[in-house]
Amino acid sequence: MRANDILSLNAGSSSLKFQLFRPTAPPSTDDPTVLASGSIKLSSSGGAKLSIVPGPGSESGQETTQELAQDASDITSPDLLKELLSNLAKAVGKGYDAEESVGIVCHRIVHGGEEEEPIVLWKGHEKALERIDALAAFAPLHNFAALKVVHNTLTLLPSSHSHLYFDTSFHRTLPPAAQTYPLPPSPSPALPGNLHLRRYGFHGLSYSFILTSISSHLITLPSHTTLIVAHLGSGASVCAIKNGESIDTSMGLTPLEGMPGSTRSGTVDPSLGYHLSPLPRTGEQPDGKETFAPLVRAKNGQTPEEGDEECHLMSRAEYFLNKKAGYGALAGTTDFGEITARIQSARERDPKENNWTEEEKKAKLAFDVFEDRLVGFIGSYYLKLSSRPSPQPIDALVFSGGIGEQSSFLRESLARKLEGTPMGVRGGFDPDRWKSELEGKGPVYDLGGSANESENTHGVGVRWLACEVHCLIAFRLTWADWIFGAFQTDEELQMARLAIAHDRSGDSERS
Amino acid sequence: MRANDILSLNAGSSSLKFQLFRPTAPPSTDDPTVLASGSIKLSSSGGAKLSIVPGPGSESGQETTQELAQDASDITSPDLLKELLSNLAKAVGKGYDAEESVGIVCHRIVHGGEEEEPIVLWKGHEKALERIDALAAFAPLHNFAALKVVHNTLTLLPSSHSHLYFDTSFHRTLPPAAQTYPLPPSPSPALPGNLHLRRYGFHGLSYSFILTSISSHLITLPSHTTLIVAHLGSGASVCAIKNGESIDTSMGLTPLEGMPGSTRSGTVDPSLGYHLSPLPRTGEQPDGKETFAPLVRAKNGQTPEEGDEECHLMSRAEYFLNKKAGYGALAGTTDFGEITARIQSARERDPKENNWTEEEKKAKLAFDVFEDRLVGFIGSYYLKLSSRPSPQPIDALVFSGGIGEQSSFLRESLARKLEGTPMGVRGGFDPDRWKSELEGKGPVYDLGGSANESENTHGVGVRWLACEVHCLIAFRLTWADWIFGAFQTDEELQMARLAIAHDRSGDSERS
Repeated sequence: MRANDILSLNAGSSSLKFQLFRPTAPPSTDDPTVLASGSIKLSSSGGAKLSIVPGPGSESGQETTQELAQDASDITSPDLLKELLSNLAKAVGKGYDAEESVGIVCHRIVHGGEEEEPIVLWKGHEKALERIDALAAFAPLHNFAALKVVHNTLTLLPSSHSHLYFDTSFHRTLPPAAQTYPLPPSPSPALPGNLHLRRYGFHGLSYSFILTSISSHLITLPSHTTLIVAHLGSGASVCAIKNGESIDTSMGLTPLEGMPGSTRSGTVDPSLGYHLSPLPRTGEQPDGKETFAPLVRAKNGQTPEEGDEECHLMSRAEYFLNKKAGYGALAGTTDFGEITARIQSARERDPKENNWTEEEKKAKLAFDVFEDRLVGFIGSYYLKLSSRPSPQPIDALVFSGGIGEQSSFLRESLARKLEGTPMGVRGGFDPDRWKSELEGKGPVYDLGGSANESENTHGVGVRWLACEVHCLIAFRLTWADWIFGAFQTDEELQMARLAIAHDRSGDSERS
Repeated sequence: MRANDILSLNAGSSSLKFQLFRPTAPPSTDDPTVLASGSIKLSSSGGAKLSIVPGPGSESGQETTQELAQDASDITSPDLLKELLSNLAKAVGKGYDAEESVGIVCHRIVHGGEEEEPIVLWKGHEKALERIDALAAFAPLHNFAALKVVHNTLTLLPSSHSHLYFDTSFHRTLPPAAQTYPLPPSPSPALPGNLHLRRYGFHGLSYSFILTSISSHLITLPSHTTLIVAHLGSGASVCAIKNGESIDTSMGLTPLEGMPGSTRSGTVDPSLGYHLSPLPRTGEQPDGKETFAPLVRAKNGQTPEEGDEECHLMSRAEYFLNKKAGYGALAGTTDFGEITARIQSARERDPKENNWTEEEKKAKLAFDVFEDRLVGFIGSYYLKLSSRPSPQPIDALVFSGGIGEQSSFLRESLARKLEGTPMGVRGGFDPDRWKSELEGKGPVYDLGGSANESENTHGVGVRWLACEVHCLIAFRLTWADWIFGAFQTDEELQMARLAIAHDRSGDSERS
């Protein structure tokens, strides 16, 4: 039997999500069957927990959660991967041997630099990894763990092929004007990996999954689908998709630009970081150690420790803007649901907002800032998609990600705000309907403005859709929140789909 | 005779613009009469040139330009101001004595921090300046020269009052959500002047002048006027004005955020500055002197020199983003007219763009990036102004600043791009009409979409207006380009208007 199964891995710094798929036989356009899915998660006390949920394609039916024997402190340890593979057998059914059955291992890599296509490689041919390795210095917290896991799988599954999927690749279609920062042609010729300082965009596997799902829901081709997608989670971004291609997105060189996240500032004045400390601006030369933007060392996404050897450097200001800012910093909690709950209960108590507590006011400000920036991006992308020479009617405004899908408070607030504008819900909206209809109807459901309603309303507004969270294992991430804000949509399935398409296209490099 | 005349000063780091006004007598709503206007400009070789244009209210009619006797290297020298005052007498007419006649000196200050109102002060009561002095460390290149000039005028015109007008004050109406960066409440409690790290906005005197001029043109009150203003020059910003109040603007904590300028990057990923040098990101601790963002010293806006004593510090990265980036960096020239001329001649030669030179391609990219960001802000502000709870019909899209008014290439490109959208020219546009009608009809002229046309086009699109450059003395600035991108609109007149209004309001603090 040919090794046909596909193992999709989604590695953060303290967690490893996985799904094991079996493609349909004979080949069809149906999605592959899930044999098992789950995660390994490091605990703060030093251990590691493995959770496996057998899928519809497994012989077993028992969800298992166990502490792994290893005293793990590093999610990229080969021992953890080895335990995962041996435990998969129990979940899938007797006699399952990953080394024999897995033909392709898919890896999600956040930053792919200039790579426009996935990279396919196998044991003994790791040279292609050098280009990506070089990017690690550029995006230290993003790529580090994933690349170690790639090396581990090539060792433990030596006959498999590894497919590397980059979140940046989806945005390869950004027009030059949207890709380019106004900088001299080569401000930094010596950057690692010869990386250009340009806009790359992120959340790409997610956008790809959403585009596929929405097109299918609309019964049209992705290449005929024009959307504004609000991908809102602890990492948040917005994307303008024109005829299936990303033409603008809010994240840039790194995931820091654009929308505020739970701990990320999003776009601020580019000089703000230099003003975080007043010290060197008062006319005295700094002593060389305490500059306005001193360096801290971040090892593999963990809080830096003195004396760490293998480490990546980032400035304290950059660390601050990534980890200590965002709507969480304004509200005092990174839980968006908690933020909106505070506002709701304050409104019920005191609709006129006269005697709100400081905490309630902070929650309101955090929400308002988040919504303000979101309205700005929606307006910007609305006009860009409507612009000549090839204006496109927008098929839908899509909400996804944890906040986008779950926060009916945000959607309702936004629907009221945008009512009567070209981006409002066509035909008006019914918040009660939203609340009752959202669950379990996924992956895509209509929030309002479907084709029928448009006939009565002269086309004012657009269709609103949500693309459902596909989160088999719910767990809270700490550092990984920063890295995988896009966690909720089914990136593992999307990678498997791409791998199958690649495998069947006949131009596989499989030897 | 009461000292009644108003001297408006607009100080940059290497130039000092001035206008001398006489209010109407008896008091009326008419603008004051110009007695004289002009500038002092430092030359790179060390001298200073004084140009005076006598106004309609002067007895003389002779424009004069002269090298000043002082070997000036500093625009803030009291000697230069003294020479200006004595030469004004020749221009205005025999017997004119500035010390006797000037009652109010208006000063334009770019960064006013939290100051919402103009500051009025006089000799012996300079304490109010301390608040603004403290901001100099925060905005070293902006406020330094202007504050020195304030001190000089209090000495040389001891019976006059000084009115300080801040470019940031116009944006005091920004709603909390637009004002706030997603940062913890007090990330930097020890900042100079207790400055909060928030969005301030700039070009305020210009926006104020434009709002006044456009309202007058539309025969309505400023408080009933809703505009999107594109203020495009070597410094460029966009502002959403709702019923006379700024509700959003593209510049933020400093003028760096937002639109690209001739040498400013505008908005980039907030972490980009930390990636300009690869040095500290390669795993080695920096030696403490050569960090990724080393400091350079900028004295009074000049290129820093080793050993300078009185200096302000800024990081090399911040300097780079302010001075070495922007559309000029992309195109290789900071002259926007040159950029568009290159594109035009390339198109005439080779409409299909197959054999464009590198220089032509660079010009095109610079233009496209500028236009892309501009479309984004227009779309963002369109949706924000149209949003509930108080959506406002937009009275006009206004172009101002050197580029906004002069570049028919940009306006035509934008009009074609936005055709058929809510921000396109209502009723279509006629580029030939634009070219022939622009000159000498100011300060406001219609570019298209006037009220009459709207009746035939069902209200698609908006009215486009331009607000004319009022630049009596045309000269190119070097460093000052950075500081006074808003140079072209009549900030001096606007200050005089505000001073007269203040003076007549009866609550003057004049003793």
